[in-house]
Amino acid sequence: MKKIGVVGGVGWPSTIEYYRLICEASQLFHKDKDVSGPVPMPEISIESLDMSFTVNNRGSSEPGSWKEWDEYFNSALKRLVKCGAELILIASVTPHTRLKEISKGIHIPVISIYDSVGSYCNSNGIKDLLVLGTMPTMNSPMFKDALGPFGVNVSYPETAGMKEKIVQIIERLYQNQTDGAASDIDKIVKSCISEKELSSTTVCLGCTELPLAFEGSSNLSGFGHDAVRYLNSSVVHALSVFEACAR
Amino acid sequence: MKKIGVVGGVGWPSTIEYYRLICEASQLFHKDKDVSGPVPMPEISIESLDMSFTVNNRGSSEPGSWKEWDEYFNSALKRLVKCGAELILIASVTPHTRLKEISKGIHIPVISIYDSVGSYCNSNGIKDLLVLGTMPTMNSPMFKDALGPFGVNVSYPETAGMKEKIVQIIERLYQNQTDGAASDIDKIVKSCISEKELSSTTVCLGCTELPLAFEGSSNLSGFGHDAVRYLNSSVVHALSVFEACAR
Repeated sequence: MKKIGVVGGVGWPSTIEYYRLICEASQLFHKDKDVSGPVPMPEISIESLDMSFTVNNRGSSEPGSWKEWDEYFNSALKRLVKCGAELILIASVTPHTRLKEISKGIHIPVISIYDSVGSYCNSNGIKDLLVLGTMPTMNSPMFKDALGPFGVNVSYPETAGMKEKIVQIIERLYQNQTDGAASDIDKIVKSCISEKELSSTTVCLGCTELPLAFEGSSNLSGFGHDAVRYLNSSVVHALSVFEACAR
Repeated sequence: MKKIGVVGGVGWPSTIEYYRLICEASQLFHKDKDVSGPVPMPEISIESLDMSFTVNNRGSSEPGSWKEWDEYFNSALKRLVKCGAELILIASVTPHTRLKEISKGIHIPVISIYDSVGSYCNSNGIKDLLVLGTMPTMNSPMFKDALGPFGVNVSYPETAGMKEKIVQIIERLYQNQTDGAASDIDKIVKSCISEKELSSTTVCLGCTELPLAFEGSSNLSGFGHDAVRYLNSSVVHALSVFEACAR
């Protein structure tokens, strides 16, 4: 198995989730194989960053304003390469919006969440994707632009009010307040898309908190809830990284 | 805060536990401090190793038989130093038995679980410690030797049969079978030491699985259960590393 490099810490619960998913994927992969002793695991280097630094050093639309932020991530990727990583995973959706800048000078594959979700959509006949996530994710055209080449049509909640409601649910889930969150998400989804669209649309849970609303879904790439079809982007991303590592 | 280097993966659930404890310690540390945005976190580099390699390359009493094992760990520590770690934590009790060998050429502090537990015993008036853990931990004189200078008298379960029972409970807990494990541990403790000794002895849960038996104890350095006083070595170790990092 190839050595995996993980950019983590943004935030730390998400890092735990990705690390767990990769280790459990390795357990499953080796289940019926003849191994002596503990199940083989890929070696993994994790650079866990300080989210307080990354949030306080976000840029704006001013040219050059992202310089410090980009360098902070880019130097973490370089350290992972130095540690022998053969492929890189960024264990968070939000930093993907500046994937090109933070991967500068990195000559090993950085497996983006967009490519993982795009491939998954192609394998599962998904053509329309409603993306829910943090405000930067829902306000960035990145998911839309990156999934275009996969033939997937991406939409976001249309109004600022709907986006705000999603962000509030993410904040509740971050504090482990799961009560009623699943049906609140269902409701927002149904206010975003018509009943007709609902049957052909998959809802992408585009951050690690949102799947916490749906009990028992933490290991599922996709699942249904109250007539809505969901895709768990962290699971899809982590599993595609493990596949690349084991290939 | 200083950058922490973590040797992980042996096993991976233990790495999650240590990482979570350190991040939550940082949240608690910054609770009433005036910070803008997310809570500051120490930067952390983790080198997650392949436990299947470490177990299959364990040495024996033959001279030189630990060479490969020692080098595998030592090179991980060196990578952590290269990544800018300013102090190192080995997120597992068992590798501590070869701490001297695997720290060769490392010129930053490696905060050992023995020192963390020793300091905790001194601060809490603990003089007698019964150590439960994996077979290598219970068969090695390391806990005894390392806690001597702290004035702490260490004992292990006396018979091979008692040790075997502890190992069986660890295996059950590793598979998340917690039912009845707490009272089984209580029973073994009471068969190891007399009622008179019980009142003056603290039982060191010397691996990350054993505390899982006691619901609600995962964040506690020490707790009581059915007249037995327990010490959770992972919590004590993780918190002392965070203290050193924040100092």
